[in-house]
Amino acid sequence: MEACLAESGVEEGLVLVNAMHITASVFINDDESGLQADFETWLETLAPEKPHSQYAHNGGEDNADAHLKRQIMGREVVVAITGGALDLGPWEQIFYGEFDGKRRKRILVKIIGE
Amino acid sequence: MEACLAESGVEEGLVLVNAMHITASVFINDDESGLQADFETWLETLAPEKPHSQYAHNGGEDNADAHLKRQIMGREVVVAITGGALDLGPWEQIFYGEFDGKRRKRILVKIIGE
Amino acid sequence: MEACLAESGVEEGLVLVNAMHITASVFINDDESGLQADFETWLETLAPEKPHSQYAHNGGEDNADAHLKRQIMGREVVVAITGGALDLGPWEQIFYGEFDGKRRKRILVKIIGE
Repeated sequence: MEACLAESGVEEGLVLVNAMHITASVFINDDESGLQADFETWLETLAPEKPHSQYAHNGGEDNADAHLKRQIMGREVVVAITGGALDLGPWEQIFYGEFDGKRRKRILVKIIGE
Repeated sequence: MEACLAESGVEEGLVLVNAMHITASVFINDDESGLQADFETWLETLAPEKPHSQYAHNGGEDNADAHLKRQIMGREVVVAITGGALDLGPWEQIFYGEFDGKRRKRILVKIIGE
Repeated sequence: MEACLAESGVEEGLVLVNAMHITASVFINDDESGLQADFETWLETLAPEKPHSQYAHNGGEDNADAHLKRQIMGREVVVAITGGALDLGPWEQIFYGEFDGKRRKRILVKIIGE
């Protein structure tokens, strides 16, 4: 991200960071391994993967739960750029979460400003 | 959306698309009818409409559940514009979800860039 | 917010409003006290604070639930600026929600446009 930002030369603006896959999320939270485990457990409680038959989407697919989990965690974040740097709070870290586990990871980074 | 974008003449920028109603969502996910049904069932599990009396909001209203559902699905999406087109992943589709069912649908589309 | 906007002189653009804390949210919903109470009760159902031991994050902390609640309510909102004013729907109000309760409240407001 910092490399994209440096390349853009933008000093004041916004950056959009989004998952390009609909079973994945880009989100901001704490970089703490216990919390990452908590997210997985919690999302599985709210939108269990199995039985696959509980979801209408799972005729030819088996990843309906990943589409639901991604709605809770969100598709995108928008972050301010101030003085040429990401304007994040002290503990804010940007994460990519993949809930299907079988996709190549692609995110989109779009920077606007001047 | 494509018509708005063409009219704007913006080649590089961002578009904000948001619900103007607080019982509704604009979100991005898969355009698959089974999944749409799964979202409805799932949201009803997480934030059941009835009994109406379970919500303090339902003194003069009966749509508290719709306000909760909308928080899970989100109010808005921000999408990159690249080369004059929406820069969406292969399966990304923008949806409007209305959880109260009694409102005229209005969304806001704001395009910035150059 | 209106003061920030007036100071910026921006007539057409976007404003990003985000929590700088990872146990807090900025969100848009209805300014109704019953609904605010409903949100608290509902979030406690989906991500209960106690027992603290149910979360791996709570080795040295006791606020894992607040990190989860914030994901449901969201980190940020992006709002259109039109004619020098926030372009909000009739009932849309911007809120700050703190789920840990022990932090000084800081939000970031970033305005872009012209």
